[in-house]
Amino acid sequence: MLGRFSLPIFGYVAFALVLILFGVCTTLDGNSVLKLGEGANNRTRIIIPAGANAMMGSYGMMMDATAMCVMGFGFLYAFCRKYTWGGIAFNYLICGMCFLWCHVCTCIIHAIFNGEFVKTEINLAAMISADLVTAAVLITFGVIYGFVSPCQLIVICLLEPLAMKFNEHIVVHYLNTSDAGGSILTHAFGAFFGLGLTLGLGVKPKHIPEENRLTNYVSDTFSLVGTIVLWMFWPSFNGSLLFDDASVQHRVVVNTYLAICASCVTAMVTSHLVHGGKINMLEVQNATLAGGVSIGMSCSYNVEPWVPVLIGGLAGALSSVGYGHISGCMENLGAMDSAGATQLHGIPGIFGALAAGIVVLATTNNQYFAADTVWTEMDDNTNGKQFGMIIASILATVAIAVATGILNGLLIRVPICEKVERKMYINEAPYFELPDDEDTTIKVSSA
Amino acid sequence: MLGRFSLPIFGYVAFALVLILFGVCTTLDGNSVLKLGEGANNRTRIIIPAGANAMMGSYGMMMDATAMCVMGFGFLYAFCRKYTWGGIAFNYLICGMCFLWCHVCTCIIHAIFNGEFVKTEINLAAMISADLVTAAVLITFGVIYGFVSPCQLIVICLLEPLAMKFNEHIVVHYLNTSDAGGSILTHAFGAFFGLGLTLGLGVKPKHIPEENRLTNYVSDTFSLVGTIVLWMFWPSFNGSLLFDDASVQHRVVVNTYLAICASCVTAMVTSHLVHGGKINMLEVQNATLAGGVSIGMSCSYNVEPWVPVLIGGLAGALSSVGYGHISGCMENLGAMDSAGATQLHGIPGIFGALAAGIVVLATTNNQYFAADTVWTEMDDNTNGKQFGMIIASILATVAIAVATGILNGLLIRVPICEKVERKMYINEAPYFELPDDEDTTIKVSSA
Amino acid sequence: MLGRFSLPIFGYVAFALVLILFGVCTTLDGNSVLKLGEGANNRTRIIIPAGANAMMGSYGMMMDATAMCVMGFGFLYAFCRKYTWGGIAFNYLICGMCFLWCHVCTCIIHAIFNGEFVKTEINLAAMISADLVTAAVLITFGVIYGFVSPCQLIVICLLEPLAMKFNEHIVVHYLNTSDAGGSILTHAFGAFFGLGLTLGLGVKPKHIPEENRLTNYVSDTFSLVGTIVLWMFWPSFNGSLLFDDASVQHRVVVNTYLAICASCVTAMVTSHLVHGGKINMLEVQNATLAGGVSIGMSCSYNVEPWVPVLIGGLAGALSSVGYGHISGCMENLGAMDSAGATQLHGIPGIFGALAAGIVVLATTNNQYFAADTVWTEMDDNTNGKQFGMIIASILATVAIAVATGILNGLLIRVPICEKVERKMYINEAPYFELPDDEDTTIKVSSA
Repeated sequence: MLGRFSLPIFGYVAFALVLILFGVCTTLDGNSVLKLGEGANNRTRIIIPAGANAMMGSYGMMMDATAMCVMGFGFLYAFCRKYTWGGIAFNYLICGMCFLWCHVCTCIIHAIFNGEFVKTEINLAAMISADLVTAAVLITFGVIYGFVSPCQLIVICLLEPLAMKFNEHIVVHYLNTSDAGGSILTHAFGAFFGLGLTLGLGVKPKHIPEENRLTNYVSDTFSLVGTIVLWMFWPSFNGSLLFDDASVQHRVVVNTYLAICASCVTAMVTSHLVHGGKINMLEVQNATLAGGVSIGMSCSYNVEPWVPVLIGGLAGALSSVGYGHISGCMENLGAMDSAGATQLHGIPGIFGALAAGIVVLATTNNQYFAADTVWTEMDDNTNGKQFGMIIASILATVAIAVATGILNGLLIRVPICEKVERKMYINEAPYFELPDDEDTTIKVSSA
Repeated sequence: MLGRFSLPIFGYVAFALVLILFGVCTTLDGNSVLKLGEGANNRTRIIIPAGANAMMGSYGMMMDATAMCVMGFGFLYAFCRKYTWGGIAFNYLICGMCFLWCHVCTCIIHAIFNGEFVKTEINLAAMISADLVTAAVLITFGVIYGFVSPCQLIVICLLEPLAMKFNEHIVVHYLNTSDAGGSILTHAFGAFFGLGLTLGLGVKPKHIPEENRLTNYVSDTFSLVGTIVLWMFWPSFNGSLLFDDASVQHRVVVNTYLAICASCVTAMVTSHLVHGGKINMLEVQNATLAGGVSIGMSCSYNVEPWVPVLIGGLAGALSSVGYGHISGCMENLGAMDSAGATQLHGIPGIFGALAAGIVVLATTNNQYFAADTVWTEMDDNTNGKQFGMIIASILATVAIAVATGILNGLLIRVPICEKVERKMYINEAPYFELPDDEDTTIKVSSA
Repeated sequence: MLGRFSLPIFGYVAFALVLILFGVCTTLDGNSVLKLGEGANNRTRIIIPAGANAMMGSYGMMMDATAMCVMGFGFLYAFCRKYTWGGIAFNYLICGMCFLWCHVCTCIIHAIFNGEFVKTEINLAAMISADLVTAAVLITFGVIYGFVSPCQLIVICLLEPLAMKFNEHIVVHYLNTSDAGGSILTHAFGAFFGLGLTLGLGVKPKHIPEENRLTNYVSDTFSLVGTIVLWMFWPSFNGSLLFDDASVQHRVVVNTYLAICASCVTAMVTSHLVHGGKINMLEVQNATLAGGVSIGMSCSYNVEPWVPVLIGGLAGALSSVGYGHISGCMENLGAMDSAGATQLHGIPGIFGALAAGIVVLATTNNQYFAADTVWTEMDDNTNGKQFGMIIASILATVAIAVATGILNGLLIRVPICEKVERKMYINEAPYFELPDDEDTTIKVSSA
């Protein structure tokens, strides 16, 4: 209806919204405000030594988490030969939009649940938190990759962070479940929100032109850039928010690192097994990362090193089997998932929460604790009750994600939002000026 | 004249110069020198705890700034299909050369202006400073990309850092203008020096073979690697030198991050608008970064978060319009700029300085301060006077950059310097052994 | 013999071994264990401020070293057009496997030499140490790149870290030679172990199909991603383990940075000279890094900045000459080295150790010291004796590396290990499901 002006209109309106609500809802972090001396020195600034700001100690981790969002997911989504630019550039646009919008959402969600209006202080902790929320949107993008227009993506960028933070509040504050690395809060939520979206949008696997789903050698190699960035920085992603306690942060880093190493090994080996003696590149790109997803909830637990190795190893194998066998079944049932986010984030996320629950059942109260919730302090919290809360958190997350996803999918079917024609699913040609010497994509001949 | 020996001769002579002047002009940082105990323990080394060296707290930021120079600019310059290797490898050579040479320049410039010879201490601060200077040379390389031989590049590497540091000294010490992120000191200087060079060299747009200007799908994708590295690490670039005050450094990081997110959104949306409904990849690669350039001068100011969002957002839109419309006009006027550094660094740099000036006019004295110059301490500094100094700094930078650029361009026309034939503009074939299966470049067929 | 099940069998067995031995040989770092209050507060956790854990100050450096292993070596090994995926994916598998296995090896080697069983504490220092050991295996992979099956690689991953740590123990504890950046302990060891392997395996240059050795424009560009990651993070690689003394760590960073800049310049210039006026991409990818290898042993020395510039500059030139001339001679003698690890790691590693020896001879005792061994404390240690120990360390490393390499090469010729057919040397087709539109690799036509 708005034709070629739909992206600029939605884009500028969204940006104006961000700008205005930034004025209303955000403020500069107290520690960053200029301090002036008192008395006779009242025109002299007070210098705060670098070490005084504990938060800056997590600066490198924040950067790593940002790199995972922009570079990691971006290049991971380069895998389709007709959507390499689409994957990277739209991922980039989502990052720019969500990194800003998340700070507004924090203020809104806080106002809804606490009934008071508090401006969000933009500081390193808020930036890290924005990375974790944006990651959920990027995971969702993996499900709907190629089915939505950039104009629809902007609407998703405005709504999903609200839904994600709504669910987070319920899980953390009402169900008392800690999930430092976001096994369910980020990963499962993003994947199931995406599945809800495809339901709401009515996308079916059979609608997709087969040739648009193909990868090629070069696009798959670019995708590996993303895989490796995600893999190596995962300990930072899980640990970046925990800068207030060095022992927890260190434990998170170690556990995540062990899990991700284990899933790298088991995913490739399992891929070789389930594909009759050849490794599948999609699984190298994705299933190798399942350890990082699955250790998310238990990464802060006080456990012996073999536990994360086992959790990560099982997750890698499970994810490879998922890509090899479950993806096909899902498509036969009519559920579409372009980049296999269900196999990488959905299933390993829920597996990770279950694994954390089992660890909780198997250990005595004071042998572990989670980042946000110190179980040991809650005297009436039996192991069984804690396990029950984790199960409830999984169910709540899946339910809220699918429901809000469907609603969002229905909403972006309104006529003023540019839609993608079926024959143009997973084809970036309508959105980019492509180089002349190729029609819409790299096709590499064997001539 | 020297034929195929011109690069080795210039290269080895330049390296010998570096080596000799390193012996004369540099020394190891005092904090890094081996300390031995006194008295009976005079053969035991004194151990200095890691936390004691505040500078090491900025190590990660220094690494990010280095990554922006070597990987960011390097891959950004991969975009021309016949100059992908040239862009990456010559960028790499410039980094190696300038990272060393800058330390010698610091000593020389200090001797000229202060009349005393002080050896440069090579430490983290000096390395960060070298990143900021090298970035200016790499921006210049974006203008003259494909028009100069590696041998001419080496001469530029020796001269531009001197010119850049000369201008920096004038702006910071005589005009009292602070420019933490280098809006004019690094970005505008680099771009206008490059324009001066093309004038001095006599390069005209019409001389360039049209086919050498083409990109292709793969080279443009490699270029996105550079874009994303530059984008995500920009907060480190602007903040790395401010390790002595945590509150300023934190503020710089936050402001830069907000500006760069905003320009990502507005640049892509504007690109879609100015190109009749399709996003142009050149603008995704470049204009999205304009926020980082334009916030450079005001990134250390004590302002509410909506201000950097607005500055970054306007810069992104302005840069996209520049690529879409102004580039063509410039070429009609005979000014050549291969990678559009004028649109990414020149215009947004000056816009950033003007924006900083407006912020200065609009706030009372003690509401902000800059990194190097604490305005609040200068009692006779009215807002209007400060604004005037910023304007003077812009004019000085443009004048010095263009003038020294033209001189450098004329100098490298001397016969002993290998030159690029017009038909070989933006074609790396004369400099590299290329793989057999392709003549000079990747050509991807649609067969 | 095991046919297509050999990788899964070897892979799962190796993973099971890791898992079981993790249970036996490793434990969580003491500083990461949950601390609870005493007395009435015995259910409250004790919060440890971030600054308290000095090790976390090297977190960024550890991440850089990890990035060098996974992303740096991985993409560096993308250079062969028929082994781009093989290079990246097998490198990734080695990382996953070795990062875990190294912690078990630490325990085993300690038990062998010290006669007591001590569980390895998995902490940041152990992770950094694992990076340095894994780097040796990845260097070895550069020599045997394309000649071994993934199943054989897994056996190498289990054995080489043991051999490497065995040699390290001898050099550091019996020969009292410090080698902070691993000139011989990591680089020379990895290269010579690889040469031993090819001897044991019986691989000959003439067996390799000529077309499988070709690179193409795109694969060479991917390889540059690896080069640049390795180059820029090298100071972190050499300095990451030295978090207990800020002055040494700072010195290591500065010296490494200077050496690597110098080798970047001299390697490219020399490449241009030895190849008759054209730069060879293999040398841009590799020889530019020789400065980092060669400064490894002397990077912790207390020397003036021109010394690392000279060492790095000579190493870069030497490595380029090696690629240009010595590689061919080696092949005529029947020694095969796919990625030229001998030229990048072997020769510059030994050159670096010799350079360190000359520095030792040329300085008085208390002018320098090494990271692990404080020469100044050993009163009976004359300069000559120290030089002799360095020479002995070089000889020991080469001897142990070649011997254990040959043994390992003979071992993986057992029939249960899948082998690579000669016509499939440097061809990944047997291991990956490749995209349909290409037969086994990208071939880029000039049509």
